Amino acid sequence: MSAVIDELVDANRILFQQGVVDGFGHVSVRDEKHPDRFLLARSMAPALVTKADILGFDLDGNTLGRDKRAPYLERFIHGEIYRARPDVMSVVHSHSPCVVPFGVVSGVPLRPICHMSGFLHPAAPVFEIRESAGPASDMLIRNRALGAALARSLGKHTVVLMRGHGSTVVGTNLRQAVFRAVYTEVNARLQTEALRLGPVTFLNAEEAANAAAMNDAVLNRAWDLWRLAARRGGTRRR
Amino acid sequence: MSAVIDELVDANRILFQQGVVDGFGHVSVRDEKHPDRFLLARSMAPALVTKADILGFDLDGNTLGRDKRAPYLERFIHGEIYRARPDVMSVVHSHSPCVVPFGVVSGVPLRPICHMSGFLHPAAPVFEIRESAGPASDMLIRNRALGAALARSLGKHTVVLMRGHGSTVVGTNLRQAVFRAVYTEVNARLQTEALRLGPVTFLNAEEAANAAAMNDAVLNRAWDLWRLAARRGGTRRR
Amino acid sequence: MSAVIDELVDANRILFQQGVVDGFGHVSVRDEKHPDRFLLARSMAPALVTKADILGFDLDGNTLGRDKRAPYLERFIHGEIYRARPDVMSVVHSHSPCVVPFGVVSGVPLRPICHMSGFLHPAAPVFEIRESAGPASDMLIRNRALGAALARSLGKHTVVLMRGHGSTVVGTNLRQAVFRAVYTEVNARLQTEALRLGPVTFLNAEEAANAAAMNDAVLNRAWDLWRLAARRGGTRRR
Amino acid sequence: MSAVIDELVDANRILFQQGVVDGFGHVSVRDEKHPDRFLLARSMAPALVTKADILGFDLDGNTLGRDKRAPYLERFIHGEIYRARPDVMSVVHSHSPCVVPFGVVSGVPLRPICHMSGFLHPAAPVFEIRESAGPASDMLIRNRALGAALARSLGKHTVVLMRGHGSTVVGTNLRQAVFRAVYTEVNARLQTEALRLGPVTFLNAEEAANAAAMNDAVLNRAWDLWRLAARRGGTRRR
Repeated sequence: MSAVIDELVDANRILFQQGVVDGFGHVSVRDEKHPDRFLLARSMAPALVTKADILGFDLDGNTLGRDKRAPYLERFIHGEIYRARPDVMSVVHSHSPCVVPFGVVSGVPLRPICHMSGFLHPAAPVFEIRESAGPASDMLIRNRALGAALARSLGKHTVVLMRGHGSTVVGTNLRQAVFRAVYTEVNARLQTEALRLGPVTFLNAEEAANAAAMNDAVLNRAWDLWRLAARRGGTRRR
Repeated sequence: MSAVIDELVDANRILFQQGVVDGFGHVSVRDEKHPDRFLLARSMAPALVTKADILGFDLDGNTLGRDKRAPYLERFIHGEIYRARPDVMSVVHSHSPCVVPFGVVSGVPLRPICHMSGFLHPAAPVFEIRESAGPASDMLIRNRALGAALARSLGKHTVVLMRGHGSTVVGTNLRQAVFRAVYTEVNARLQTEALRLGPVTFLNAEEAANAAAMNDAVLNRAWDLWRLAARRGGTRRR
Repeated sequence: MSAVIDELVDANRILFQQGVVDGFGHVSVRDEKHPDRFLLARSMAPALVTKADILGFDLDGNTLGRDKRAPYLERFIHGEIYRARPDVMSVVHSHSPCVVPFGVVSGVPLRPICHMSGFLHPAAPVFEIRESAGPASDMLIRNRALGAALARSLGKHTVVLMRGHGSTVVGTNLRQAVFRAVYTEVNARLQTEALRLGPVTFLNAEEAANAAAMNDAVLNRAWDLWRLAARRGGTRRR
Repeated sequence: MSAVIDELVDANRILFQQGVVDGFGHVSVRDEKHPDRFLLARSMAPALVTKADILGFDLDGNTLGRDKRAPYLERFIHGEIYRARPDVMSVVHSHSPCVVPFGVVSGVPLRPICHMSGFLHPAAPVFEIRESAGPASDMLIRNRALGAALARSLGKHTVVLMRGHGSTVVGTNLRQAVFRAVYTEVNARLQTEALRLGPVTFLNAEEAANAAAMNDAVLNRAWDLWRLAARRGGTRRR
């Protein structure tokens, strides 16, 4: 368990240093031994998370044990996706900046522009909170019902965009979820630029699937680099 | 008083490190015990401000006490907004780069594109100095009359854009004003990108109000992170 | 040989710090004494390469000696270009971000916009892997045949774009290849911006050739700066 | 003289750290006591310049004394502008990235978008080297005749763009030239963004002149900040 918590602390710091999260956003990992539980930091800036800040939750979003520290309001993103997607072992929620525009514009889906983001195929769906919460929400996934609605929008995809809010990325393990969150942001930036040059050739279904499988085999190469940089506290990317 | 001054010093450094101000720009806080007074650094780069650099002013922009150090020429931005808006306790003036374009183009209002910037609803008004100072100004708010004109443009909004100059952001406390200044810049960058992709769905009135209220409750999370980074003197964002 | 290896280590770190490679990408140098061999790091993040990580390869992509450490899957990029281009002494493969869009859009060739990138004249060709590997590849140059096809696309040029993947840059020596990789990225960024302003006047053939020759004479000025910055481990560009 | 040399060293380092120069570019200052002489570093990366690297030149571009160290090939930019413009006391030549696009596109002049860059009024002229050197130059100002042609294009302006190359900025003192070089780059970035939003209202002649005069009075505020940052060797802007 301690090793998982160490990794989750690293993940928090990596996501900050790679520009995926700022003062807000969060990353969780499912408890392998108790698949109806997950680990997530208490409500705080990801860059500052330490081992002592990691809490346990059940899928309803209740804190385990007697810990009274404030949890993230949007912990239901994590619980409901774990409930709906048994294959998912880790979830990243962020407002990463190049992705937000794809969530507020109709008809311009976020699609895999290169082999590093094959996991985006065919395209990231967009969650419109007005369809579930009506026209007067505060945009947040603040209860189980909204978490379940978000999980339905996610469906079998790896990334779901949230209109006027951000995005949520899932993985079959923590490192893969972090990797996907970083390259979702990279893909969004590249796609934004490419669309202004002209019509884009995206990866097709087989290219995307094969490239995604390849990256799963080498993603530790990026993880090791990012972890080192995050621990050094060096330059923040972007 | 000492605690307020410490916070104001932090605010100066945070605004630099988060890319809101460069060598120019300033932030003030109203004196809670004497609402007709405010605190503002002497004329200098915000990144270098220390406690000894903070001066007191009356709402007319006169330095309190016998301090002869040069004040910011544009201190009237602060005094006249405090006069016109009793609810305002802090003011940030900057030339933050992604915001300037929205002040020089007609018909493209800066509007809240995501929940972090709900405070922008419905849109930031634009102050055209030619209407008050005529066609031959130096663009600066260099006297009380221009400060009052700017305050009228601001009206009941939280942000006013200044054509060919920058913007001014207000808050009901110092941390909120800093938070809004940072996310006004973020919103401008996201909106610029999104508008090139296609028509944008902005937050509606209720979403904006609810999201803004939510952020008021959690903005210390960002403040703590920013203050730590500013004190470390680490990487400057952007 | 030791001096060459030192330079190759520096090249790896420079390419990271200048924003050409991230966790992925690689740079090789041909063995001057054995032109049918080249030096390339084992499979790892370029920023972390040390002397002990440099392996030798024959042009077929076989590791020399009994070293069993995992090589880069795409080492065939290097071997087949060295085979096809006796003048090439160094090869850089990357996913540098501003270049990728030019590889996925038809009819917008990457061309030399200023004297620093005269080597791009007349324009970088685009390698479409579907023409060689069919519609179901993983986008990677994973065998000799694909390496040879890429080398054919490169032809006599200095840079070849790879659709949905990245680019490969060659030089008559290691420092030149690194210089060209950095300024290919710079050129792509400038060209992207300029094309949005209006029709661009690119360098003509003679301007490009003359400017490229001039830069070959002064590129140590950049190399010395980049090496110093990379060894300090300071701020990463972009 | 020693104080001037110290300032020139700082100027070199500031221009690097503020993103105006990379491994290339140069800054000079005219000798106040001998107006037919100027100071300029030997041929090297500006970020690495020390006092010992500063050479003296006559306006023809000859090195003073018996110093045999290689000078910048383009020292004629400086000599010929000092000859043509007695009011100019300092010259900055760079390839600052946001400015280059304005030099390669017709009909989109670089104009003052805000009060920080009033010195650009009415617009920066563009030097087309083909008109002086013919169609087969290497793009460089490599002799007196080309320097004189560039000075003619500059005319009475403060900035001249060089097609496919970069720009040259002048000032009535060293700090002003550096200030203008930094804000020419800032203006270019802001103008690029604003032009995509819609038609832009630029500063008019009086606003530009008045704002420029104001900034001349406060530019030490920026200089002090930049010098401190450059001496610390901290984060490079952009």
